[in-house]
Amino acid sequence: MRLNYKAVFNLLGLLLIFNGAFMWLCLPFSLYYKEDIFPILISGIITAGVGSMAWLSTRNSKNKELKKRDGFLVVSLGWILMSIFGTIPFLLSGHVTSFTDAFFETASGYTTTGASILNNIEALPYGLLFWRSTTQWVGGMGIIVLAVAILPTLGIGGMQLFTAEASGITHDKLKPKIKDTARRLWTIYLGLTLLETIFLMFGGMSFYDALSHSFTTMASGGFSPKNASVAYYNSAFIQYTIIFFMILAGTNFSLLYFFFKGKIRRLIDNEEFRVYCITIITVTIISTVIVFSESWQGFEKAFRDALFQVVSVLSSTGFVTADYTKWTSLVSFIFLLLMLSGASAGSTSGGIKVIRFTLLLKNSFLAVKRQLHPSAVIPVRINGNAVEEETMFNVMAFVILYLTIFVFGVFILTFTGNDIITSLGAVATCQGNIGPGLGTVGPVNNFAHLNDVSKWTLSIIMILGRLELFTILVLLTPNYWRGL
Amino acid sequence: MRLNYKAVFNLLGLLLIFNGAFMWLCLPFSLYYKEDIFPILISGIITAGVGSMAWLSTRNSKNKELKKRDGFLVVSLGWILMSIFGTIPFLLSGHVTSFTDAFFETASGYTTTGASILNNIEALPYGLLFWRSTTQWVGGMGIIVLAVAILPTLGIGGMQLFTAEASGITHDKLKPKIKDTARRLWTIYLGLTLLETIFLMFGGMSFYDALSHSFTTMASGGFSPKNASVAYYNSAFIQYTIIFFMILAGTNFSLLYFFFKGKIRRLIDNEEFRVYCITIITVTIISTVIVFSESWQGFEKAFRDALFQVVSVLSSTGFVTADYTKWTSLVSFIFLLLMLSGASAGSTSGGIKVIRFTLLLKNSFLAVKRQLHPSAVIPVRINGNAVEEETMFNVMAFVILYLTIFVFGVFILTFTGNDIITSLGAVATCQGNIGPGLGTVGPVNNFAHLNDVSKWTLSIIMILGRLELFTILVLLTPNYWRGL
Repeated sequence: MRLNYKAVFNLLGLLLIFNGAFMWLCLPFSLYYKEDIFPILISGIITAGVGSMAWLSTRNSKNKELKKRDGFLVVSLGWILMSIFGTIPFLLSGHVTSFTDAFFETASGYTTTGASILNNIEALPYGLLFWRSTTQWVGGMGIIVLAVAILPTLGIGGMQLFTAEASGITHDKLKPKIKDTARRLWTIYLGLTLLETIFLMFGGMSFYDALSHSFTTMASGGFSPKNASVAYYNSAFIQYTIIFFMILAGTNFSLLYFFFKGKIRRLIDNEEFRVYCITIITVTIISTVIVFSESWQGFEKAFRDALFQVVSVLSSTGFVTADYTKWTSLVSFIFLLLMLSGASAGSTSGGIKVIRFTLLLKNSFLAVKRQLHPSAVIPVRINGNAVEEETMFNVMAFVILYLTIFVFGVFILTFTGNDIITSLGAVATCQGNIGPGLGTVGPVNNFAHLNDVSKWTLSIIMILGRLELFTILVLLTPNYWRGL
Repeated sequence: MRLNYKAVFNLLGLLLIFNGAFMWLCLPFSLYYKEDIFPILISGIITAGVGSMAWLSTRNSKNKELKKRDGFLVVSLGWILMSIFGTIPFLLSGHVTSFTDAFFETASGYTTTGASILNNIEALPYGLLFWRSTTQWVGGMGIIVLAVAILPTLGIGGMQLFTAEASGITHDKLKPKIKDTARRLWTIYLGLTLLETIFLMFGGMSFYDALSHSFTTMASGGFSPKNASVAYYNSAFIQYTIIFFMILAGTNFSLLYFFFKGKIRRLIDNEEFRVYCITIITVTIISTVIVFSESWQGFEKAFRDALFQVVSVLSSTGFVTADYTKWTSLVSFIFLLLMLSGASAGSTSGGIKVIRFTLLLKNSFLAVKRQLHPSAVIPVRINGNAVEEETMFNVMAFVILYLTIFVFGVFILTFTGNDIITSLGAVATCQGNIGPGLGTVGPVNNFAHLNDVSKWTLSIIMILGRLELFTILVLLTPNYWRGL
């Protein structure tokens, strides 16, 4: 079956037009703050222009049908193209001069990572910073649909089971209509973004700041227009608000949809959601005890700092209100594990995802039991339903691939001169799309000082991780390109 | 089915008698070097005495049959009891005053780890040091039979396939006669020990030193009567000899048996053996380049140091001729991975084993291919034969459990105050039974300075790792003790 190039280009063209439009949506802020509008204006023209050319030239194609094979290409090229064109506002503004840096920052945007090469964020124009936050909001929008609708349809990484479950279908292999699903999810996404904006403004933020932070909270992105990230805002109200919405953004959006439709038990009874919550509670307790005992702060502040950092890292958002690398090596190690873990499937969070760990651990405990009863067929169960063997294989394969890529990333970073802790933290945080790392790329640092090889390696790893590995890896198999 | 306590105690009694006898076998050295013989003499009497009491009191039991369930108990209690009684020579000699330290050193012996709490090894009497080396040789003897005969029969960790394959039986679930297999393997083990002793004496070592090092080479143990380990011997001949026998000790002993019977291809065509060799070659090349470029040594010395350290760590022996932690953070990270990897199944080596990694990586690559052809049933193959799904599940379960225990170990070590690098290295080296770690427990340090909690944690982890996790974990399931 041939690759449907025309349909692929058609869709990619639309995507670029869409991104160009989003660039122009930053202009009101440029005008309000009396900044130079030309960098963003021209960037939008270029992006939408190229998009239009691609779209128009493939518009009259007879065959508009996208097969599974085309899907991999659209998604992979989509993220790469958005990351390339998204650099233009940065480069044209003159505030970022290296393409390596611009691509890193933009990929960090669209992959909702939040790692930054900017030494002084607040030196950039408001309009440009809003574009920065927008790349994350758009990335999150794409991820929601990808994680809940597209990737399960493509059957990637064993996720089909959990999404079918979330929509209430366990044994039926019904493929949800992608457009309908997308519409529902984007409604929740937009609604929660606006709700958070209102809350943050109520807490004292300007509209610009409130919207910027809401954009990157719901995307689990973590970009902030402030150098000090959310630590800039001393307000408990603001910080607890952001904590609340970060938790939501790390929850399966299908379950959120059911919750808002009144089917509350679907969310509360969900096994992955429960493990997610228990993880937050447990690690927060450990961290609170350590922070409280090691600092001079009051208990509430210690608790708030612990909770904020734990939720921020686990949900892969990446906002920062305290330097967690100062909280003993035990906590640093736990945070490294949180980065590898990630939050719920079907959310904007990155990482291996709670559900995969849950399944694999259950399999391991079952294996110990099986030593005494080798002939008994005891399947792994989730939410009460037996998990198919093929799903377990896909989950195993995903985790091994994830760790393999992790190891290669650490190889490259240590090879180019970084110490082990920095390398482990940098790769873990980029692959899981969190943002702050460990060592010299910790929560109070940035990625500016890394060499170009490290930055390109991390940019690629960000995209690989965001697209659940397989989406891009499939393009590297000879089999994919056979019989073009 | 009831646990056959009497048969279990009977076997354990025999084991202790056996160990008591081995203690007495150190006395010739004590006499030759004119040392106090009473500590070792009395230790042997106590150990063999208790063993005799257990053996005699259960001798007239009608039911001598050991079921699978009993097997787990015998093996687990066996290693623990040997480690307890083996401390007596150390304690009675007065050279080790803390039971924590003595247990750590003895467990490090029987599990063939080689991590030491002795600040000055050479201050100990020759007789006692020979007991130290003997604990490793005995441990290795036990492991050979365990890994090739007992654990596959118990069906632990997915190893049954590889041993059946090694004996030439692929589809037949023939259980090899444990006694026959043990006899064959011990013949090779003893033969190679004597052969290495001869070579080392030819290279200039005294009989005592040659035998001591041969004992701990074949066991992949790594204890040396010298403070500087094998670095004490500047001789290229001695070092290359040890390298050669370390490689052998990390090879599947079943394959070695076939090799010595003339069936050379069984070894050379074996997939795990090939991956094992390629790993040694690849990592040695990388390390040689780094060592040569960073030091003032000649090329041959750089190559020899690289090769020695790589083989020593991969085979989980743990002898040291150079401080690999000085060879860049990239190499330290690679060595950490070598510790987790280990060498071949069915050898005296520890770790996850090359074959498990090979299977999991193959499964992952297949999963990427499966994205395009989800309905195709493509099994993972090893040595040309398809691997059963249940074996894959066991392999995955083993790896996840291994990493889970690893993580808990690092938790505890960092919690008690060690830095991350030291904790990662200490747990990895003990779980994989290698010996030298990273950070403050690196190749030129020892484990003396760690606190008691760390030492006990590591001692337990050594034993867990040596017994392939499941053997002990099964004893922790409620199901095991049901209907005693």
